[in-house]
Amino acid sequence: MSGFVSLVGAGPGDPDLLTVRAARALAAADIVFYDALVARGTLDLASRAQRFGVGKRGGRPSMRQETINRLLVRSARRGRRVVRLKGGDPFVLGRGGEEALALAAAGVPFEIVPGVSSAVAAPALSGIPVTHRGLASAFVVVSGHAEDAWGPVLTGLSPGGLTLVVLMGLAARGPIANALLTRGWAPSTPAAILWGAGTWESARWIGSLAELGRADPPPAAKGAPGTIVVGAVVALASVLGGAPSGEAEAERPAAVAAGVAGGTHAR
Amino acid sequence: MSGFVSLVGAGPGDPDLLTVRAARALAAADIVFYDALVARGTLDLASRAQRFGVGKRGGRPSMRQETINRLLVRSARRGRRVVRLKGGDPFVLGRGGEEALALAAAGVPFEIVPGVSSAVAAPALSGIPVTHRGLASAFVVVSGHAEDAWGPVLTGLSPGGLTLVVLMGLAARGPIANALLTRGWAPSTPAAILWGAGTWESARWIGSLAELGRADPPPAAKGAPGTIVVGAVVALASVLGGAPSGEAEAERPAAVAAGVAGGTHAR
Repeated sequence: MSGFVSLVGAGPGDPDLLTVRAARALAAADIVFYDALVARGTLDLASRAQRFGVGKRGGRPSMRQETINRLLVRSARRGRRVVRLKGGDPFVLGRGGEEALALAAAGVPFEIVPGVSSAVAAPALSGIPVTHRGLASAFVVVSGHAEDAWGPVLTGLSPGGLTLVVLMGLAARGPIANALLTRGWAPSTPAAILWGAGTWESARWIGSLAELGRADPPPAAKGAPGTIVVGAVVALASVLGGAPSGEAEAERPAAVAAGVAGGTHAR
Repeated sequence: MSGFVSLVGAGPGDPDLLTVRAARALAAADIVFYDALVARGTLDLASRAQRFGVGKRGGRPSMRQETINRLLVRSARRGRRVVRLKGGDPFVLGRGGEEALALAAAGVPFEIVPGVSSAVAAPALSGIPVTHRGLASAFVVVSGHAEDAWGPVLTGLSPGGLTLVVLMGLAARGPIANALLTRGWAPSTPAAILWGAGTWESARWIGSLAELGRADPPPAAKGAPGTIVVGAVVALASVLGGAPSGEAEAERPAAVAAGVAGGTHAR
């Protein structure tokens, strides 16, 4: 009997932001292969499963993609119900497509379970809508991991009318800011870096594009991946997310999903 | 006592793709204001709530945004637990930011509950990853509703290396295709239109950018909003989503979340 693989998005961190289908797949799983950024509480839902971390952590290299693909195929062929659990959405910069192709090539049945992408949720949980009437009717999500990938994208992106979200781009925030400024984006364009939005350990920096390259991660953000947001919508964080402008801050609890009413965080 | 408003993303359609937090907010709600595209099964989770549809349906105009804002504020001031239920994610082209601003201005406590955006999930459920190594390291989501919004965005978008997702752009597929061709996108660029992905009534058309303007909605798609996807990743649908290329087809069940193994849909 053949097993089955679910490529599951774990959402931005908080287990509450998992989909119902994802929670069900985890509960039914025999074996789970998870990325480094998946929260403990999410993994705990896979109560009867063997669990294996296959992601990057603390600078150590992650398992090779080919090895992960092989593990998924082999586990399914042994008749197991396999969950491949990935941060955010499996198809947003998560190499889920490569895993799906490997499964299809091996004749292993699988499904995609979309998740809440941190590209949208990290800003949202910080009071930043990626689109907003009059400010941005479009948004762009790009990987900041490799310059030969983000370089051409940013160079091809006219300023204004859209929001830019960069995932995995913290280390390259200087060159990324420069690329945008060179492309004609205004130095005064609001910009933010968000760490761990939707988790208990979150922090953010809010400033301008001109300052982005020199933005310092607050101590609370140590090691966490940061989401960069650039665009006029970032200014709404001061009203919708309780963020004082122009400084880094750590928040706790910072599942600041909540809005601000009369100056207090509300949950 | 003040009430509370949850601005909740309902996801792409299937109630299973609701987040756990959204399901909980619905179960606890006294009153729900929902958009036209929210599924029956999702609404049923709000078992103890009064429910009011406030969205556009079948060409009839939707309630004015100011009216919706006022209803949210008034209901919360009466001490009710209010859910504002929106298709997809509340901050992806859903005017959730305007509602949040109105609540903040009125001093009403609220929270944002991010949802799975159909901008990512509709392609995913059709076997199209919006990003894929070597094909697209970025994606753009834009509203196709008003040309003065999408026009400048598309004109500012260099072809190649990214995936374009257009929501609410079905009626403008001709002018949108022309704008991209004029901008230098190759006529052979794969393109798709997806209707109702993640629901039981879904359909899709797959072809090229050159053909997009003349693409005919299949009968099964009648009236449903379509998601347009343009980019090299669309070609993966033939392997990951079981879509024969170059024709429109209706699928049922088409929560074809599932991949294809040996030529058969697998769930």
